[in-house]
Amino acid sequence: MAQQKKMVDAITSMDEDFAKWYTDVCKKAELIEYTSVKGCMVIRPYGYAIWENIQSILDKMFKETGHENVCMPMFIPESLLQKEKDHVEGFAPECAWVTYGGSEKLEERLCVRPTSETLFCEHFKNVVHSHRDLPKLYNQWVSVVRWEKTTRPFLRSREFLWQEGHTLHATAEEAIEETERMLGVYTKFCQESLAIPVVQGQKTESDKFAGAERTYCIEALMHDGKALQAGTSHYFGDGFARAFDIQFSNKENKLTYPHQTSWGMTTRLIGAIIMTHGDDNGLVLPPAVAPIQAIVVPIAQHKEGVLDKAAELKDRLAKVCRANIDDSDNSPGWKFAEYEMKGVPVRVEIGPKDIENNQCVLVTRHNREKTIVSLDNVEQDVLKKLEEVRQGIYESALENRERRTYVAKTLNEITEQLEKNGDGFIKAMWCGDEECEDKVKEITGVGSRCIPFEQEQLSDKCVCCGKPAKHMLYWGKAY
Amino acid sequence: MAQQKKMVDAITSMDEDFAKWYTDVCKKAELIEYTSVKGCMVIRPYGYAIWENIQSILDKMFKETGHENVCMPMFIPESLLQKEKDHVEGFAPECAWVTYGGSEKLEERLCVRPTSETLFCEHFKNVVHSHRDLPKLYNQWVSVVRWEKTTRPFLRSREFLWQEGHTLHATAEEAIEETERMLGVYTKFCQESLAIPVVQGQKTESDKFAGAERTYCIEALMHDGKALQAGTSHYFGDGFARAFDIQFSNKENKLTYPHQTSWGMTTRLIGAIIMTHGDDNGLVLPPAVAPIQAIVVPIAQHKEGVLDKAAELKDRLAKVCRANIDDSDNSPGWKFAEYEMKGVPVRVEIGPKDIENNQCVLVTRHNREKTIVSLDNVEQDVLKKLEEVRQGIYESALENRERRTYVAKTLNEITEQLEKNGDGFIKAMWCGDEECEDKVKEITGVGSRCIPFEQEQLSDKCVCCGKPAKHMLYWGKAY
Repeated sequence: MAQQKKMVDAITSMDEDFAKWYTDVCKKAELIEYTSVKGCMVIRPYGYAIWENIQSILDKMFKETGHENVCMPMFIPESLLQKEKDHVEGFAPECAWVTYGGSEKLEERLCVRPTSETLFCEHFKNVVHSHRDLPKLYNQWVSVVRWEKTTRPFLRSREFLWQEGHTLHATAEEAIEETERMLGVYTKFCQESLAIPVVQGQKTESDKFAGAERTYCIEALMHDGKALQAGTSHYFGDGFARAFDIQFSNKENKLTYPHQTSWGMTTRLIGAIIMTHGDDNGLVLPPAVAPIQAIVVPIAQHKEGVLDKAAELKDRLAKVCRANIDDSDNSPGWKFAEYEMKGVPVRVEIGPKDIENNQCVLVTRHNREKTIVSLDNVEQDVLKKLEEVRQGIYESALENRERRTYVAKTLNEITEQLEKNGDGFIKAMWCGDEECEDKVKEITGVGSRCIPFEQEQLSDKCVCCGKPAKHMLYWGKAY
Repeated sequence: MAQQKKMVDAITSMDEDFAKWYTDVCKKAELIEYTSVKGCMVIRPYGYAIWENIQSILDKMFKETGHENVCMPMFIPESLLQKEKDHVEGFAPECAWVTYGGSEKLEERLCVRPTSETLFCEHFKNVVHSHRDLPKLYNQWVSVVRWEKTTRPFLRSREFLWQEGHTLHATAEEAIEETERMLGVYTKFCQESLAIPVVQGQKTESDKFAGAERTYCIEALMHDGKALQAGTSHYFGDGFARAFDIQFSNKENKLTYPHQTSWGMTTRLIGAIIMTHGDDNGLVLPPAVAPIQAIVVPIAQHKEGVLDKAAELKDRLAKVCRANIDDSDNSPGWKFAEYEMKGVPVRVEIGPKDIENNQCVLVTRHNREKTIVSLDNVEQDVLKKLEEVRQGIYESALENRERRTYVAKTLNEITEQLEKNGDGFIKAMWCGDEECEDKVKEITGVGSRCIPFEQEQLSDKCVCCGKPAKHMLYWGKAY
């Protein structure tokens, strides 16, 4: 028990210092380790296994919606990056530049991709000629680099893993439909697989992706009341096609510019999982992406028959979920703390008395509820518990978001709400002017998160200037 | 049929120009496309799907042998790369260097990983302290960059995809065992999944990986008689551990240096597949990694009932293998050529007469053999054909290698064999001196490929200097 205590003591509590709690969890749950390159981390086996599960579910959803995986180079020549004016303006300041190959200075410097629109455009120009070549529905799983000043594991790192979808369509309608479809896929994935409730909406003009006509996003609210953008889906119109001179002959044999989209989700989803579901004992993992869904802990394992029975139980569970056993010589208490830290959704305890009674104890991670169940149908009971965890953590997260979502009709009300209740989403009306958007941020500290698809008519006046309101916005501080 | 002709005409024949045939296949089978960065290619959906299948089989084999996936950063600070003397000497000349982050010059330049030993060592130093932390059995799937002068798709590109295993062990014995185990995994994978026969052996001193004590390898012989290194497995001893000051307290509580390995396979395997199995009609894919294993081609598809029956057939086959249907309005002849080009192992033809007779026609890609089978057990028949293709192409490849493996006892005999028979493996004895190794290459043009595990006593004299021979070597020209 001494070790258990040590372990639990080692985490800062959320209320004391949320930022410190977050990095403690990242380190103690063995998700990451720092390296000598600032902002670049090692994703350790346990962290990477979460990412592999995220990949596997999303990849299946992408393939079911007709997408194919490809792989573009990681280098973009400076001249290629510059072809679309808004795009280069957005990304050049945070590019990492390769200037030497071996001992030779390159004739043209290459940036390490911060995103790959320009590479896909170059490729599309090479392979798309006729309407028969459309649509192109591509995705790639790679890492990208953005030279950020301040960095935090998963949330903002100089290199991060992601998937980037890039699609090309004959018409604007099809491209818009795709942009919306993929936002829907992201929403479904976040809510069902990660148990993270999200608000779907559109970014304001000033907050769009560099080069996009529209940026859709899903926004989640973390435990501390700060918002996190969990995924984005961009509609480009034919802007990139014109910049890169991509044309196809349509059914009437006329040269036409195609319409384009891109959409991405990143390893920051792991940060979102930590900050949405975690608690003072560590991680709480959504079952769908948990590397271990059920951990069997033998009690009094030195007693005859316990280890055998526990191993048998683990083998049975391994047929229906990702089950493991810890038969090391650490104490049960140490193991409890260890797997709570690692966020394993269901703990399965089995000791001599349980064996005698043909039973075991199931403990769900998020509420530490204990249930004694018969060994006869233990597989079904564990699966039921996994679903209970998923629902339970989704409901807690939703409850947290609702409790922390405030309505404000004036700038003063924004400030009052934040002072009284702490950070959260502010719902407030907006006239549509960038000037007001900037002013709200300057005065109250909260920025626009999105124009939600589900609009409400809170008042008919802009929260800032009092002129007629166009949209209700979600505002908040963001990661 | 006009289109079919056009397609087939467009490939250079192997005998006419093997190198041109190779790049023709890469392009026409839609595996890759060039980009504006020399030596960096787009891996297109069909090519990437082959890589995904390779990944999926290998990844399972790695996990079954106890390995976990991780992800290291892509950047290595110059000072970190320099810690192991031999290693930096080997890799620095081909590093791509990042010197700017945004508009700021970096204090220390970073190389884009050419391989990740140094990053793993830095990490091992952080996380390994006790014998309880060992072994560490890690792997990662990433891309690496080596600034090559001459480049060819898959075979030698500036950026390529690979997996790199990195393991750390308490003892030399364990590490050597791991090095050999992973060479065994590679051999099994190449021979069983890719149907490529390989020679297992050890690299000579001059040909070792930079920083390794021993490099094991598997060597395959391509259709043109040139050798291709298909995978390597390195034993490092404790050299890196000493350079990076990685120590652990062993069971006797004494600080000890651990022993290390690394092993890798790359997208050049796709090049090996092309050059081992391909023919003048294009790719021939080993069924285990073929994106489409069986393609259903309806014959006279405008006739009533044909498309329905073909779709039904495809659905049945899709339950047992990766099956697809081409119901486009291209002619059957065009489709035959298209899927031959793409190397689909089994073509399934079904037309009005077949339907009448409750049958279909199976055509195996490698030998174009036609078999008429009943629709009753068509799933089993297609699976049998897939296994026939695997065996058939393995046997052809083995036959090609044996036909092109020559014995030589003198330098003259090497030259004579090459002149008479063309390129191939030369088996010849060697005294063990680097001087002789260099001289053989200088005079005959063939370099040492490996010291095969299966030694033969061809003579007792070195093929070059006539002094007592230590090993039989395989020699050859290599990709």
